[in-house]
Amino acid sequence: MWAFVRKDPRKPVFAAKVATALGLITLLVFLREPTDIASHSVWAILTVVVVFEFSIGATLSKGLNRGLGTLTAGGLSLAVSEFSSHMGNYATVFLIICTFVVAFGATLTKLHPKMKPYEYGLRVFLLTFCYVTVSGYNTGKFTATAISRFLLIAIGAAVSLALNIGIHPIWAGEELHNLVAKNFAGVAKSLEGCVDGYLKCMEYERVPSSIVTYQASDDDHLYSGCRAAVESSAQEEALLGFAIWEPPHGPYKMMKYPWKNYTKVGGALRHCSFAVMALHGCILSEIQAPPESRNVFSAELHKVGKEGAKVLRELGHRVKTMTKLSSPNILSEVHFAAEELQKKIDQKSYLLVNTEKWEAMMRRQGGAAANGEHVPGRAIGNPYRGAVHKSNSFASSPFLSSFGSAPTKSDASFKPQPPWPPRQSSFHASLPFEAAAESRTYESASALSLATFASLLIEFVARLRSLVDAFEELSENADFKDPVEEPSAI
Amino acid sequence: MWAFVRKDPRKPVFAAKVATALGLITLLVFLREPTDIASHSVWAILTVVVVFEFSIGATLSKGLNRGLGTLTAGGLSLAVSEFSSHMGNYATVFLIICTFVVAFGATLTKLHPKMKPYEYGLRVFLLTFCYVTVSGYNTGKFTATAISRFLLIAIGAAVSLALNIGIHPIWAGEELHNLVAKNFAGVAKSLEGCVDGYLKCMEYERVPSSIVTYQASDDDHLYSGCRAAVESSAQEEALLGFAIWEPPHGPYKMMKYPWKNYTKVGGALRHCSFAVMALHGCILSEIQAPPESRNVFSAELHKVGKEGAKVLRELGHRVKTMTKLSSPNILSEVHFAAEELQKKIDQKSYLLVNTEKWEAMMRRQGGAAANGEHVPGRAIGNPYRGAVHKSNSFASSPFLSSFGSAPTKSDASFKPQPPWPPRQSSFHASLPFEAAAESRTYESASALSLATFASLLIEFVARLRSLVDAFEELSENADFKDPVEEPSAI
Repeated sequence: MWAFVRKDPRKPVFAAKVATALGLITLLVFLREPTDIASHSVWAILTVVVVFEFSIGATLSKGLNRGLGTLTAGGLSLAVSEFSSHMGNYATVFLIICTFVVAFGATLTKLHPKMKPYEYGLRVFLLTFCYVTVSGYNTGKFTATAISRFLLIAIGAAVSLALNIGIHPIWAGEELHNLVAKNFAGVAKSLEGCVDGYLKCMEYERVPSSIVTYQASDDDHLYSGCRAAVESSAQEEALLGFAIWEPPHGPYKMMKYPWKNYTKVGGALRHCSFAVMALHGCILSEIQAPPESRNVFSAELHKVGKEGAKVLRELGHRVKTMTKLSSPNILSEVHFAAEELQKKIDQKSYLLVNTEKWEAMMRRQGGAAANGEHVPGRAIGNPYRGAVHKSNSFASSPFLSSFGSAPTKSDASFKPQPPWPPRQSSFHASLPFEAAAESRTYESASALSLATFASLLIEFVARLRSLVDAFEELSENADFKDPVEEPSAI
Repeated sequence: MWAFVRKDPRKPVFAAKVATALGLITLLVFLREPTDIASHSVWAILTVVVVFEFSIGATLSKGLNRGLGTLTAGGLSLAVSEFSSHMGNYATVFLIICTFVVAFGATLTKLHPKMKPYEYGLRVFLLTFCYVTVSGYNTGKFTATAISRFLLIAIGAAVSLALNIGIHPIWAGEELHNLVAKNFAGVAKSLEGCVDGYLKCMEYERVPSSIVTYQASDDDHLYSGCRAAVESSAQEEALLGFAIWEPPHGPYKMMKYPWKNYTKVGGALRHCSFAVMALHGCILSEIQAPPESRNVFSAELHKVGKEGAKVLRELGHRVKTMTKLSSPNILSEVHFAAEELQKKIDQKSYLLVNTEKWEAMMRRQGGAAANGEHVPGRAIGNPYRGAVHKSNSFASSPFLSSFGSAPTKSDASFKPQPPWPPRQSSFHASLPFEAAAESRTYESASALSLATFASLLIEFVARLRSLVDAFEELSENADFKDPVEEPSAI
């Protein structure tokens, strides 16, 4: 309990505010001020307990809902009872039928998805209507009941609002702002963690069941950063619903502040974090690329991860401090890094696929092709069409051939090859052919998994574009500050 | 409004139930039965309006919260007022201080994340405590207030429960069950749509901003099926919170029914649907594989997509009908299809990478390697170590060479090559070197994007394992029916 209070000091402050408001109401009742408070004091207390919400937006929206619900219900029930007073003996039946009809209509409306923000108002409407109708019938003082009730609700609401806004207000808009900004850091940390973990060949001994069943898991920070961003979707929507009720305040001095744009930035970040989740999926995967080939791309992958995280942190910082981007090309470095990675992949692509099969196939089908037989599934329009293009294969590429203690001049000598490369015979000499074939398939898959990781990383970089666009839209609409020039620039 | 009612006929039924309950309470008040109902009728009405929730679980949990809150608050406030009656002049001050302390404690407790299910109870506790204290002080009849209030709440609760459970009950557990089962179909549809769309080279003219900012979008059914599964996480948790309150009923005849397992299955499905979202990301991506190479893998990709969707639908159907799996190897076909895909990739991997660069590099560095210079970033422990392994490259592979109207005997002839393959000169003859290099990078990326799609599809298949495990755990714990033997099997 103590740790929880320490973590968010706004909570005890809020609790103290509620306690003060209730104490104040109790005092008013004891002072009998206004005079009829004692008999209807429940309404003032009820209003405080129910309307006093954590954030100002929620308080205002509930208060307004409550006020509107009470007013309309009061009006309607007065009309109904006025009408029923002319009905003599049938008044009771009429009132019950009215109650039924109003309750049916209000409940059905409440269930409509579009009426969600007004749900509370409809509930209050129904409650007030029934109460005024019933108690008015008993005492015959419809108007008095409605008025004194409304008066006490107004007192309760006034005390709630004055205390909630007056003392240390907690704004839903600010919370939305902070939530969106915080998620940037979480995704950045996840991204870096995934890239580093991948390069360090981090592997899950056993994938935690909390991950495969998508439960919350605090242990795994690679995962939790992304999950938090994905999961905060509902919370952002809820905060947006409250924030739009809040008056301009603090740094959000603008009528119709574009809160919607914050959720859009949050959504674009979520779109990016799906790519990070896919990266994390590569770490979870059973099929893993060999550490050697990861090492080849290590520098480039690391660079992209670092630059990507830098962009995310920079954007998060800009959102937090509400400043515009200082230069339009915040993405240039990460794009450059991604291009470098792409070029490296381009150069070293022989590491990403299992090339053994080609040769076997080639040897098998060489004759067939020569006899004019066409291989099915050919790529129509391939620009290599008809090119008599022969050169050395991957195995004689400088990369691989440089391992021999006495490197061969690969370009110069063309010698006939043994039917299977040494790897097969040394690794799977004792295995039957089928097992060997499967093992080759596995090897090929494991090499491709590195290609997948790299592609997903590049896809992540591509998605940063829409995130920057969403941020720029926000910074325009919300009129963010221009960035302060760095002192070193002067 | 009419469409909304037609879509879910439970909603008007529920509205009618609420209306009936309120009508009944009104009738009781008019009959003045029990006698003190008139003056405290508000409590019965309030209870009905507040406690009558859509699902039985929610009603029971709210009712229990309300009951417990009222009882403990009543007890506490009686004790406090008993104590205050001995204090003479300081009674008022003492009561106000008590109110403050209780309000502070209750509000702070309410804000603790672990107390979320009891939030409502704490609210009622606070309300009752204040009300009984205040009105007891005014009238001096503490016990009478507390008792009559409790009696009326009990009446309201009894009417609510009787009507809500008695007439056409709506169970949160059933809704959870249906939600989880429904999401299977949505993900299956998304998966099939993604694979088919990818093979048809579907492209977004302009990616809808609702997707990049992760807003709901009804237009795009590829996307909405997955998004629904991802988004339903909060709803599943909420329904789980209600379902555990529900007594055994209908097909869920078991004490401590394992509702938690439904959310686990839902979570495992979500884990799968992240893979499908990543597949969808391949369609969104700007870098696209050429249609020709997609065609090569078309049959295999399609098969995996179809089998994967079949497994999802089968599992969804089993969840829906609560039957166990008929055979333990439901995954065998999709695994077989995935292996076929993997083998095909293995054979045709030259289509997935841009091999031009190898040759250029090779030629450039061939001499360097011969001089004993080691290329940085070499793969330590590569099994090709020292292998003098030279053969023909991709360009002379049967696949590509078969295009020439007069295919060359690729194996037989080794001729010196032109420095650049014909493709470059014909495509980018007029471009400067830099642009040509970039274009090659792009080509390589576009080929790899197909590998990524295939890998992600295989990753999806791998994730099905944990989904089947989660389902089997559920079917064990919830004691699902054994499958009925198909008539054809006899």
